[in-house]
Amino acid sequence: MRMRNLPWAPDYLAASSHVIQQPETLRGNWKKHFDKERVLVEIGCGKGSFARQMSEKNPDAAFIAVELNPSVAALAARSFDEQQLENTALIQKNASQISEWFEPGEIDAIYLNFSDPWPKKRNHKRRLSAPSFLKQYRSLLKDNGTLALKSDNASFFSDSVLQLLDAGFVLEKLDVDYHFEEHPEDASTEYERKFIEKGNPIYYSLWSSRRDREV
Amino acid sequence: MRMRNLPWAPDYLAASSHVIQQPETLRGNWKKHFDKERVLVEIGCGKGSFARQMSEKNPDAAFIAVELNPSVAALAARSFDEQQLENTALIQKNASQISEWFEPGEIDAIYLNFSDPWPKKRNHKRRLSAPSFLKQYRSLLKDNGTLALKSDNASFFSDSVLQLLDAGFVLEKLDVDYHFEEHPEDASTEYERKFIEKGNPIYYSLWSSRRDREV
Repeated sequence: MRMRNLPWAPDYLAASSHVIQQPETLRGNWKKHFDKERVLVEIGCGKGSFARQMSEKNPDAAFIAVELNPSVAALAARSFDEQQLENTALIQKNASQISEWFEPGEIDAIYLNFSDPWPKKRNHKRRLSAPSFLKQYRSLLKDNGTLALKSDNASFFSDSVLQLLDAGFVLEKLDVDYHFEEHPEDASTEYERKFIEKGNPIYYSLWSSRRDREV
Repeated sequence: MRMRNLPWAPDYLAASSHVIQQPETLRGNWKKHFDKERVLVEIGCGKGSFARQMSEKNPDAAFIAVELNPSVAALAARSFDEQQLENTALIQKNASQISEWFEPGEIDAIYLNFSDPWPKKRNHKRRLSAPSFLKQYRSLLKDNGTLALKSDNASFFSDSVLQLLDAGFVLEKLDVDYHFEEHPEDASTEYERKFIEKGNPIYYSLWSSRRDREV
């Protein structure tokens, strides 16, 4: 999702109480820091709609939203500030560094919603479902943690399923015609709602990081 | 695909030279009988459009089409007769008996095209991708044989993918927005073409029966 630069974004991100400036300082201590039992992480949170809904639905969890784009991240942070969400934080950094922020086994669930499909072959390594990312996710997730992948891009989704299998994740649920309204445990993104209005299909998969299947 | 009964079907099936009346008598001898190097099997061939195209595209293979419905099977057999296909045969029986017709490792590829989705839970065991069928397919396929599953039914397709993984098949290709025109090695069914005209999505998966992953 492209958007123009917001000139106020860098200053806002530097000042917002919801933005974690140095996530590596919380490594191994996220639960303690938030006084919560679980850690949920959305990678590529966009404007934060999914994060806000999931924070409210999971008051026992810390919800950490990661977004690289400063303008989009600033909009998400501002919405967290306005709604005074106490169990939500934002990291405006490249998720390729995620292992510096979390300890192995520290995360309960990871969400990838409508990630950039990077259609050109030479850019596939940038996808949030590329092997270098999946290897980190699997290590950072607890045993029997979950990864949920949702997308409207057929090619990105199909390839991601193959990558996840290769990385040792175990497929728990698959729905190639997903309707979030039928899933009260889930939340929707701005992008998802626009897409649904057009009548286009959405693809969903839920994966387990079960350790009994080593690769 | 429902159709009305054709009163001439039983007599036609009994007389057609393309219909194998006792497939168990060829068990272990399909390649020799057809003087071909490979054995391809479509389970649920409908009126035979896919079988006819694949027979022509694979002159080095015997193409065995299985169809339980007598009226539909008679239309397929008649088309094989009319086109005088020499490497094609039809079995009008229930595929649950498939292990009686083929020896373990005798089949090179299995095709499931737009199989009946049997939407009600209590009927899932009748699906051609139910565990009892998949176990037989995996045994009858050679090492590194393939199973191709194509469907327009999201729920049936999603569940079949989970069942195939459980049965030890290895996912080689997945396409949740499949266009057969882009795949010269594939062929289309009557049903598929009607569905495409409506602009609806088709789901495709290709699986390997690799023996290095035991379950």
